[in-house]
Amino acid sequence: MHNTLKQLHYPKALKLKRKPIQNQIPGKITYVGEETSEETVINVISYNEEKVVYHNNCSLEKVLDLVTHEKEFQHWINFIGVHDVKKLADLGNLLQIHPLVLEDIANTKQRPKLDEFEDYVFFALKMIFHNDAGLLIKNHFGIVFNKSYIISFQQSQDSIFNSIRDRIHNKVGRIRMRGTDYLFYALIDAVVDNYYNVTETIEEKTENLEDRILKDAHNASTSEIQLLKREILSVRKAIFPAKELIRKLQISKHELYDQSTKAYLADLYDHILQVTENVDIYREIVWGLMDMYMSSLSNKMNQVMKVLTIMSSIFIPLTFIAGVYGMNFEFMPELGYRPAYFIVWGVMLVMTLALIYFFKRKNWF
Amino acid sequence: MHNTLKQLHYPKALKLKRKPIQNQIPGKITYVGEETSEETVINVISYNEEKVVYHNNCSLEKVLDLVTHEKEFQHWINFIGVHDVKKLADLGNLLQIHPLVLEDIANTKQRPKLDEFEDYVFFALKMIFHNDAGLLIKNHFGIVFNKSYIISFQQSQDSIFNSIRDRIHNKVGRIRMRGTDYLFYALIDAVVDNYYNVTETIEEKTENLEDRILKDAHNASTSEIQLLKREILSVRKAIFPAKELIRKLQISKHELYDQSTKAYLADLYDHILQVTENVDIYREIVWGLMDMYMSSLSNKMNQVMKVLTIMSSIFIPLTFIAGVYGMNFEFMPELGYRPAYFIVWGVMLVMTLALIYFFKRKNWF
Amino acid sequence: MHNTLKQLHYPKALKLKRKPIQNQIPGKITYVGEETSEETVINVISYNEEKVVYHNNCSLEKVLDLVTHEKEFQHWINFIGVHDVKKLADLGNLLQIHPLVLEDIANTKQRPKLDEFEDYVFFALKMIFHNDAGLLIKNHFGIVFNKSYIISFQQSQDSIFNSIRDRIHNKVGRIRMRGTDYLFYALIDAVVDNYYNVTETIEEKTENLEDRILKDAHNASTSEIQLLKREILSVRKAIFPAKELIRKLQISKHELYDQSTKAYLADLYDHILQVTENVDIYREIVWGLMDMYMSSLSNKMNQVMKVLTIMSSIFIPLTFIAGVYGMNFEFMPELGYRPAYFIVWGVMLVMTLALIYFFKRKNWF
Amino acid sequence: MHNTLKQLHYPKALKLKRKPIQNQIPGKITYVGEETSEETVINVISYNEEKVVYHNNCSLEKVLDLVTHEKEFQHWINFIGVHDVKKLADLGNLLQIHPLVLEDIANTKQRPKLDEFEDYVFFALKMIFHNDAGLLIKNHFGIVFNKSYIISFQQSQDSIFNSIRDRIHNKVGRIRMRGTDYLFYALIDAVVDNYYNVTETIEEKTENLEDRILKDAHNASTSEIQLLKREILSVRKAIFPAKELIRKLQISKHELYDQSTKAYLADLYDHILQVTENVDIYREIVWGLMDMYMSSLSNKMNQVMKVLTIMSSIFIPLTFIAGVYGMNFEFMPELGYRPAYFIVWGVMLVMTLALIYFFKRKNWF
Amino acid sequence: MHNTLKQLHYPKALKLKRKPIQNQIPGKITYVGEETSEETVINVISYNEEKVVYHNNCSLEKVLDLVTHEKEFQHWINFIGVHDVKKLADLGNLLQIHPLVLEDIANTKQRPKLDEFEDYVFFALKMIFHNDAGLLIKNHFGIVFNKSYIISFQQSQDSIFNSIRDRIHNKVGRIRMRGTDYLFYALIDAVVDNYYNVTETIEEKTENLEDRILKDAHNASTSEIQLLKREILSVRKAIFPAKELIRKLQISKHELYDQSTKAYLADLYDHILQVTENVDIYREIVWGLMDMYMSSLSNKMNQVMKVLTIMSSIFIPLTFIAGVYGMNFEFMPELGYRPAYFIVWGVMLVMTLALIYFFKRKNWF
Repeated sequence: MHNTLKQLHYPKALKLKRKPIQNQIPGKITYVGEETSEETVINVISYNEEKVVYHNNCSLEKVLDLVTHEKEFQHWINFIGVHDVKKLADLGNLLQIHPLVLEDIANTKQRPKLDEFEDYVFFALKMIFHNDAGLLIKNHFGIVFNKSYIISFQQSQDSIFNSIRDRIHNKVGRIRMRGTDYLFYALIDAVVDNYYNVTETIEEKTENLEDRILKDAHNASTSEIQLLKREILSVRKAIFPAKELIRKLQISKHELYDQSTKAYLADLYDHILQVTENVDIYREIVWGLMDMYMSSLSNKMNQVMKVLTIMSSIFIPLTFIAGVYGMNFEFMPELGYRPAYFIVWGVMLVMTLALIYFFKRKNWF
Repeated sequence: MHNTLKQLHYPKALKLKRKPIQNQIPGKITYVGEETSEETVINVISYNEEKVVYHNNCSLEKVLDLVTHEKEFQHWINFIGVHDVKKLADLGNLLQIHPLVLEDIANTKQRPKLDEFEDYVFFALKMIFHNDAGLLIKNHFGIVFNKSYIISFQQSQDSIFNSIRDRIHNKVGRIRMRGTDYLFYALIDAVVDNYYNVTETIEEKTENLEDRILKDAHNASTSEIQLLKREILSVRKAIFPAKELIRKLQISKHELYDQSTKAYLADLYDHILQVTENVDIYREIVWGLMDMYMSSLSNKMNQVMKVLTIMSSIFIPLTFIAGVYGMNFEFMPELGYRPAYFIVWGVMLVMTLALIYFFKRKNWF
Repeated sequence: MHNTLKQLHYPKALKLKRKPIQNQIPGKITYVGEETSEETVINVISYNEEKVVYHNNCSLEKVLDLVTHEKEFQHWINFIGVHDVKKLADLGNLLQIHPLVLEDIANTKQRPKLDEFEDYVFFALKMIFHNDAGLLIKNHFGIVFNKSYIISFQQSQDSIFNSIRDRIHNKVGRIRMRGTDYLFYALIDAVVDNYYNVTETIEEKTENLEDRILKDAHNASTSEIQLLKREILSVRKAIFPAKELIRKLQISKHELYDQSTKAYLADLYDHILQVTENVDIYREIVWGLMDMYMSSLSNKMNQVMKVLTIMSSIFIPLTFIAGVYGMNFEFMPELGYRPAYFIVWGVMLVMTLALIYFFKRKNWF
Repeated sequence: MHNTLKQLHYPKALKLKRKPIQNQIPGKITYVGEETSEETVINVISYNEEKVVYHNNCSLEKVLDLVTHEKEFQHWINFIGVHDVKKLADLGNLLQIHPLVLEDIANTKQRPKLDEFEDYVFFALKMIFHNDAGLLIKNHFGIVFNKSYIISFQQSQDSIFNSIRDRIHNKVGRIRMRGTDYLFYALIDAVVDNYYNVTETIEEKTENLEDRILKDAHNASTSEIQLLKREILSVRKAIFPAKELIRKLQISKHELYDQSTKAYLADLYDHILQVTENVDIYREIVWGLMDMYMSSLSNKMNQVMKVLTIMSSIFIPLTFIAGVYGMNFEFMPELGYRPAYFIVWGVMLVMTLALIYFFKRKNWF
Repeated sequence: MHNTLKQLHYPKALKLKRKPIQNQIPGKITYVGEETSEETVINVISYNEEKVVYHNNCSLEKVLDLVTHEKEFQHWINFIGVHDVKKLADLGNLLQIHPLVLEDIANTKQRPKLDEFEDYVFFALKMIFHNDAGLLIKNHFGIVFNKSYIISFQQSQDSIFNSIRDRIHNKVGRIRMRGTDYLFYALIDAVVDNYYNVTETIEEKTENLEDRILKDAHNASTSEIQLLKREILSVRKAIFPAKELIRKLQISKHELYDQSTKAYLADLYDHILQVTENVDIYREIVWGLMDMYMSSLSNKMNQVMKVLTIMSSIFIPLTFIAGVYGMNFEFMPELGYRPAYFIVWGVMLVMTLALIYFFKRKNWF
């Protein structure tokens, strides 16, 4: 069988989609991700303690104009639709963002990342959520901020920041009194808060699956367990690097973070720590489900075997007795004995009851 | 089968309780936890080496009055019922406690935490115990202390600190001679001491389950093992961060901890280290129970199979012999031979004995 | 089945021995451990290069007298029976030992511990050995030493230090020429040397169990594997913290350790490292035994199934043939054919041989 | 059975290819790897911002001439075919490369390595890819560079660097404006980019295998899972050391790396981090496949057992009834009763239906 | 069954070879290892750039004479047979080696160790190889070296250093031009090079075992897997501490190591890193073999069950039909119908074919 290993290796069913080796030019901004036809939009919210001004669907010139002339405001520039790399590059050019940062913004497969430059900070992380079909969606999300403005780069329109917009609009909490670093914190906090929802959905899925396995292994399937495993691995991949980066934020000495914001960053680190602990607990539980599934199968097998054994053990001996008196020997004294037939029935009954008693005592019913 | 993966993913049985994405305002004090109708109570014990004075059910003004004017006492302010966020916020306001601290106190899902501010220290940890139904209960517990007073925040009335109250009342041990840092230590020590009880209950549960699995796999169930796993994971989640924090306490250079208290903190660290080691040992043992369960099932299956095999192997050949002499061939010499019937019985007996001997030698009985 | 989880949780068989939450006063010396009726004894060996003097069964006054006046000797004070907390406290008082140290000495569940005070050092570790019944025994052992004396605290009389007494008595090796730090090292070394014996017994037990599982899974049982696992976990719990502490000893800069003793401490660390490596190897092997046990069971099941399959496959078809010619159709041409009976026998024989050949080729015999 | 362990240890089938112990002289350059008959070629690309000059198939003298006299160019010396150790040693001699470096270049089994000398840097890593047969190929790749030239050592001609050659030729991106350190980065980046393709192929293989296991365990085999495991281990072995080394590069203070290149090295580290995370996720998934395979087998066994149990449980009792009325007792009242035969058929039908109902209710169909 | 746990604990088959607790005197040189009757021999090779002189079978006086008077040579003193502790102690005395070092040399169970004294360095490691029977042999090997001589302590004569002797004799490579530190490196390098052979043998064993398990689980046995596991654990135990020590060597600032030797030590570390990585890969693979073995057993069981199920499912219904027409009812209309017999045969044939078709479609053949 061993000589066939190499052939087995590539069964006909598997046609590898071999890609040509393509070497990307570093710093060249390329959109990596699902294609989309949404139009790219730039919305700016300019606010200070007194006023909030909304600039929807800004042109690049308008953005440049805002950040260079309206210094009395803080500007939250929301760039929605990173697939338009042309616009992205132009914006980066105008605001002097490093090409590698722009590359990381356009690459939606990019892992979470923190880059602290002299006069601005870049932070990329993943928004994750379950869509209505219960599938896990990962969206790439980048933030660039300096003293006077903050740019958030999103793949698509999202409701996740609505509450922050409300807080700015209604002057709830400290957000209007604080600098861009506080908004920076608030945005990340919104994303991390959302991680809780994801872990709760995973919790529900796990418990639902666990219940079904316990009830009857055939209600569940290994593919479900495997899917849940993949989902948890995928969430871990998004959240764990973020944890490290928020830790870095917390201990960073970059002057863009105000001392008063540091306490909030510490709090944020605490939140994401709690999320990662939850994920790891579900990891342990889901990894244990396969064992549960196996023992559930084993249990069922035991049931099946018992039915077979009981039926066979009772009827095979009886059939044997019937067979004996079906023999055609000329001389079989019992055959002529009148009550013999009923005696045989009696013997059979006794045997059956004895076996049933034996199985009862073994707790096989 | 693979195309059905996506559908399988959300069986009808699973209705996800999708929550709207809600972004909490940082520093906004919100009670997170089970609803309760108990009334919030503040009790203060003021003590020094000479005197102990009890102020039950204080108003906030009374508390402020005590801590600002009765400087000759140390005050232990016991705030019971953190669900009253209004009162909590007011108290925090009066005593100038950071809003994030108050948020962590009101959030009973908050993981253990240590925050050392310039003039006070905040410590949050979990009281865990098994209730009378044997279920694991986790209560959130927070302490804030400075040079002259200590505030303990509890979810509900608890007997865990009674012995400390007795020690203060009766002047047992060093507690009346020492500062608030010693009381701080004593409170945490009481909580950690209680962890021992929890690990002992887990030990009992584990051994009970182990015994039942060894006796008969059907006395136990995988769901019990899974529950115990979850319980241990839950305990770990409460205790392990506390270990880290007590380690930090021990090496902290904050001036609120007196040098003489440091030895006690080292001792405390030692205690929690021992608790965590115990938990990890039970973790290893419980994780091994599923294997025991599986092998117990396998053993039972072996038993069932042996009964089936023995019954079948003995009676199927006998039935065959009976069948042979039940054939209706006109010319079958044995049929006419008179003792043939008895010879056949003899042959059957010999066969049966031979098979029994064979199974005996294989140790199948 | 799931709704019964909560009930299952506490089967009637499990009566939790709920203890009242008892908060121990820190620094209060309480004996924790098995009760014993042995009397507490203090033996002192005073020695220097020239002389050895034995003071058996000393009173506390005598001890104080020795350590304060006979400065030309080093005193090894052997306190046997830590359950007498009164005497322990008095001794501690006389020699000014910190109450927390005394608490750790009286608590025989205390994990290994090293505390370096300004003028004395406290070290606690576990003596472990297998008793004659093969059960693992853990005894708590504490040492306190300063420049002029060393106090060893034992639970009960022990033969483990006899060789050290001999070396002192007979002036073998360096022990009489060196200070108390060397004796301190020698005592720990004796305990660690004994760990080798423990790991060797575990090795024997493991190999014995492995052999029996390989021979026949029914000679062994999962409970034995589980017991061995627990034993190894218990040994690890005693030895691993000790390893850390000896490492600390080795790199400690406390002035009580003479430079020349440092080489011996390094050697000691090496020994305990080797012990821990051995324990971890047996850990790996024992954890693998459950798999061996399972595959051994599976193998047996295969055997059973083969017997059943062979018997059934041979005799069921034969019985069918016999059944055919037992039918009572009026017109069955074969029945009248004279040699038919023998032909049928022949056919049966050929079928049987063919099946036997088939099973042989499948290597089922 | 245990006494046979030692014999079992070396079954006849295993003839160990014992090699003579051979002690290699350190610094002696020996080719370790598969034999090849390709000729060794040295191609040089000399470029600066203005010009690119190609020198194909250079002699060693030509190379020396280029690097010593044409200082206005940067030279990329591509040495293809490291099996020619003579030429390799000569080149090393001319350009004063340390013998140990040359040894590491010629040893294609060498693990990834970074050596920073005072005036040049040596970096060795693995090019890995799947060949057309889907087998994993590892090629050894070494780079030596200093201020004015870079030498890349390859086992064989490769298309992986074509895009870099294009970028140099067409002046795309920054490559012509930057120093040798940027080319150094670009070469490593090309190799690391290729790791993505490898992990994607592993992803495809894993998913294909997973699908087939889910469909029917017999479509897949444990040998495939084992092969995939080995492949992942092999990839890890190549990539993980590289990760460490790129980390070192990133934090190195060697003056050969320009400050502007540092950002690219950080980016590179990020890429390889992402690759290693992907590999570890597939590792987890593939390690879980064996469990899926086992449960798939168990499921099939359950199917088989159910068929057996249903068939046996239905027909064995029926056969018994038929057997009863095949008995030859002289007095069996039913035999003479005319409709008896049809009543028996009826009873049999009812029994069969009852059993079918029973199995249906157990969900066995 | 549980009450019998304690008895089970020590089955009669297990007689623990309880050893008396023996406390070894630290620094007392005792041979620990297998007894041997070989005579201890000291061979000295004295060499410098110009000359090599061989002194075989030297007396201790001769050795002392050489190292004190012939300062123009470097002396490689090869002490073969460390069981002669008397000679070892005398040599140690003459050359002022620390007693603890001598103890570590004579204790062949000693784990790898590096001790750097002010004027000499001690290094102990394990030579491991497979003997002709394929069993793993571990020999203890110690080196002591200072500026002018190097002493290698071996358990027995060995061919492993022949190539080094050749290099010295023939002045190959750098060995004659360098100091004792280079010889020190060369000796360790020879030992580490040999580790490659060991891992290759393990590789062969693993692959052989894997092949046999894949072909037929009964060709292999769990005891083989267990043996291979133990072998790998044993190799790890020898190699991993050595890795740490070579790392220490590499970063050591001891003045005995010349700067030029440092590059070789770095290379050495690289080699042993590669060995340890290989060992860990085989560890992973071997640990996975038990799963393969189990699934192979499961597969076989499936085969067996299918044969049983097919045979039973085909013949049990047929036997039932035959049984029906073997009944002796007086009124059974079919019996008198002439072609009935052949019709029954036809029905049986059709049933059989239908079942065969059913099993074929289930892929059971």
